[in-house]
Amino acid sequence: MSDTRERVVVTEVGMRDGLQSIARTMPTEFKRRWIDAAYAAGVRHMEVASFVPAKLLPQMADADAVIAHALTYDDLTVTALVPNLKGAQRALEAGVHRIVAPISVSAAHSLANVRKTPAEMIDAFAAMRELIDSAASDAGADASAGAAATASGHVRVGTRGHRVELIAGLSTVFGCTLQGAVPYADIAAIARAAAQAGADVIALGDTTGEATPRQVGEIIELVRDAVGNTLRSLHFHDTRGLGLANTLIALQHGIREFDASLAGLGGCPHAPGATGNVNTEDLVFMLDSMGYDTGIDLTRLLASRAVLADALPGEPLYGYLARAGLPKQFAAAGPSSGSSFDSTESQVLQ
Amino acid sequence: MSDTRERVVVTEVGMRDGLQSIARTMPTEFKRRWIDAAYAAGVRHMEVASFVPAKLLPQMADADAVIAHALTYDDLTVTALVPNLKGAQRALEAGVHRIVAPISVSAAHSLANVRKTPAEMIDAFAAMRELIDSAASDAGADASAGAAATASGHVRVGTRGHRVELIAGLSTVFGCTLQGAVPYADIAAIARAAAQAGADVIALGDTTGEATPRQVGEIIELVRDAVGNTLRSLHFHDTRGLGLANTLIALQHGIREFDASLAGLGGCPHAPGATGNVNTEDLVFMLDSMGYDTGIDLTRLLASRAVLADALPGEPLYGYLARAGLPKQFAAAGPSSGSSFDSTESQVLQ
Repeated sequence: MSDTRERVVVTEVGMRDGLQSIARTMPTEFKRRWIDAAYAAGVRHMEVASFVPAKLLPQMADADAVIAHALTYDDLTVTALVPNLKGAQRALEAGVHRIVAPISVSAAHSLANVRKTPAEMIDAFAAMRELIDSAASDAGADASAGAAATASGHVRVGTRGHRVELIAGLSTVFGCTLQGAVPYADIAAIARAAAQAGADVIALGDTTGEATPRQVGEIIELVRDAVGNTLRSLHFHDTRGLGLANTLIALQHGIREFDASLAGLGGCPHAPGATGNVNTEDLVFMLDSMGYDTGIDLTRLLASRAVLADALPGEPLYGYLARAGLPKQFAAAGPSSGSSFDSTESQVLQ
Repeated sequence: MSDTRERVVVTEVGMRDGLQSIARTMPTEFKRRWIDAAYAAGVRHMEVASFVPAKLLPQMADADAVIAHALTYDDLTVTALVPNLKGAQRALEAGVHRIVAPISVSAAHSLANVRKTPAEMIDAFAAMRELIDSAASDAGADASAGAAATASGHVRVGTRGHRVELIAGLSTVFGCTLQGAVPYADIAAIARAAAQAGADVIALGDTTGEATPRQVGEIIELVRDAVGNTLRSLHFHDTRGLGLANTLIALQHGIREFDASLAGLGGCPHAPGATGNVNTEDLVFMLDSMGYDTGIDLTRLLASRAVLADALPGEPLYGYLARAGLPKQFAAAGPSSGSSFDSTESQVLQ
């Protein structure tokens, strides 16, 4: 049976955002097992590490080893987060496919997080763009099979010969715990500046878990007006229980790429109210039920939580589906059914 | 400032559905305190009891006393759930404003829950309709101030002189743990039968927490095609984390009445996966953020959880908002802002 369902990309970011947000460090071997289990469940996009000083984030000190393992899967898109040019250099050398650079739209958050204003981060982002392009030139003719010319004329080839995408991860887009409201004009201006600085993709992040449904729709349209379809991905936290409702609105506004963390791993040891990303299992369940194709097997995905339980005993693991299980007779909805359930003949009142 | 925001009715059902679903019995005095606290927070619709044999549900044995207390508030709409004619008689005598009769669209669930087929429940429902109408006739001229003629010719006046609404609470509409899928044709047929039997309101209940967003939209349209605007209210459980996403879809399909439980109280001692209704605080937060007027003060609503903590020590209380708190600068969105946050002048990149 050919599958004509619409594709939605779910990127597992628990290995980066989740692990970065808890106090303990997951041993490298467990990170490898997590990647294996996620891959076995059908996950084909993972953000597996960030390149930041090990003193600041010892959880991410094994970024090279983790990325090397992820790259053993030919069809796995491997992403790393980098805050600066040095991180971008390391990510390129490690051979990732995608580099995400966080750019806070809140000046207060940007200064606190990376000691740069948003404008300074845009400059740093432009420098990353140049670095990636020059790395592509250096890779030369032997990498030409993997090279790709973009509309903007960039040729992006990583040091291992594959195309590298640069993603501007706009953070605190939906509110900032330091600044409070972030003016819409700022969001649009920074999105436009990031696109002009060479972003292949603009992603919007609800860093502080303050996004609400109506606002999500408004901001997607605002940013799309500014940068068109370079806006491609959404990153929600589930701090106030609206992660899936916000995702639903984003779907209605045409977004087809979402970040999520297995077991909602995350939270922040220093901020009791903070919580992790949208739970991968619950997100995939919702998408499946709506007839979207994620390529992810829910039963295997649920089983992969065992890696976290083994690696991080005592760490809270979240998730509704893990607790309640799949509904009886649940199956991913096909393109024509429009429902997760068989509509068989009427049995009563006839 | 006049408030032109659109109204959404949130009915607190924790005193009935929540308390009925946990093993312990809340002392009557705490139920009174809960009603007081909910009222103080602005809640004006509460389902406070069910009339079922005390042997089956000792948690509800004090229904008369609880309803008597609720009725001390002049502008509080007081609802009771009743499974049969005897319960309807008791509810009328107690003086409630609304009677909800559950009618399962799943034959398997209906037989297990009330030992009647759905068709037999429709007959019982029609008998309740007659009872309410004859009680209204008995109430006679002295109650004429409270009488109201409906389009169907029914005159509904309770024994205390006020109008009584009869609600058909269709249950297991979105799936049944016993039967699995419930055919759409059954749902439509039973909704139509309930309307013909005299339902003032059709409410749809996700008894088993299996509802998913696309399905919610489909079933709302299906039932609306069958019964028009008699379909008025939705009752979600949050078993698989989709309660608010489902609510969002229902809002988009014109529904403006929702049931919810403070602290998501509920779950079922005999079914580990079952969970309570959609959390009242989180629901009101979402509605506020989207510019709807619930009349409920979130800070006071959050404070009212203390009654549950006092009354049911050790009982798990759920809720994202209770954990994370309101976002900085959050305020209910007005009709023109379209956002919960002030959009002040741009501060950066200019």
